[in-house]
Amino acid sequence: MPRVSQDHLDARRRQILDGARTCFARFGYEGATVRRLEEATGLSRGAIFHHFRDKESLFLALAEDEARRMADVVAEQGLVQVMRDLLAAPAGQDHPADWLGTRLEVSRRLRTDPEFRGRWAERSEALTEATRQRLQRQREAGNLRDDIDVKVLTAFLELVLEGLVSHLAMGLPADDLEPVLDLVEESVRRHRRGVEVSD
Amino acid sequence: MPRVSQDHLDARRRQILDGARTCFARFGYEGATVRRLEEATGLSRGAIFHHFRDKESLFLALAEDEARRMADVVAEQGLVQVMRDLLAAPAGQDHPADWLGTRLEVSRRLRTDPEFRGRWAERSEALTEATRQRLQRQREAGNLRDDIDVKVLTAFLELVLEGLVSHLAMGLPADDLEPVLDLVEESVRRHRRGVEVSD
Repeated sequence: MPRVSQDHLDARRRQILDGARTCFARFGYEGATVRRLEEATGLSRGAIFHHFRDKESLFLALAEDEARRMADVVAEQGLVQVMRDLLAAPAGQDHPADWLGTRLEVSRRLRTDPEFRGRWAERSEALTEATRQRLQRQREAGNLRDDIDVKVLTAFLELVLEGLVSHLAMGLPADDLEPVLDLVEESVRRHRRGVEVSD
Repeated sequence: MPRVSQDHLDARRRQILDGARTCFARFGYEGATVRRLEEATGLSRGAIFHHFRDKESLFLALAEDEARRMADVVAEQGLVQVMRDLLAAPAGQDHPADWLGTRLEVSRRLRTDPEFRGRWAERSEALTEATRQRLQRQREAGNLRDDIDVKVLTAFLELVLEGLVSHLAMGLPADDLEPVLDLVEESVRRHRRGVEVSD
């Protein structure tokens, strides 16, 4: 019997992740039962949990995927662009906001389960690091305000991203947020000095 | 038999809300069963649901309470102060972050249940309105930047608040957020003009 090829394993893993993402987005973390995961992936529980230890691992792998995709956009275009992309995502059956909602659903668990939080934090670290590096390059290029530590600017952008994720996941109106993101971008970008208002 | 006085009704209502808040914070929205709500409030389900139609109404009354408390702070000191207060809240058994986590837990429901979202939005409107009015007064006093619409500044501050709520609810490290809030405050407060960096 031929050994299962790496390509085949990767494709199978991808199939599981894609199905699981849809399933989590649709039913939430708690609602994504093993039976529903089987239906969404088209695979048996045996096959699913051969690739992922448990539901938590599957969820965290998706979070890692997402952080990596965002980190790629950050490296090229910055974290505000990630936010603009989230805003522009078309509504639909598999809307990103449904997945974002699942992320929020686990927030209590993140808070109360230090091991889970540790595994989550590890995965989001990639995004923080990409943001910090991008801002550092922008500073060196003279595009960034230079009176505030890059760490603070990174934390600021991440806090706004968290707000946006929460906002979209709750289905609150988002059509007025474009100018807010402009303000966020401007707040970190150029060097500014306080000037008194003069009429 | 004497009629139950309004004071008595108010006190009873208060007792239910306080107990329910602790219960939601501790067990989450789904985990706050009727039995646990009875234990936390010291009252029977009959008494509880005499005052509140159902669990959802109880939860929304708490959200309304919270929005009103925040709106009071906003009127006097602004929305950034609300955020500073959240940051400064002492950790403990009944930490506000646990309640905030419950808020996030219902985010999927907010997204998928328009009636629930409508009732929620009604309750948070008080906070938005208080923020807008405060910013308007600050603008008239010359303390606010005047190149950006008050609506945009309001939405910006609310987005950061949502990010902070999410951050705290997830138990992420928050000891580096004080300078971030300084930046947020500065971004709306004074009028600034872009100035080229000169060494």
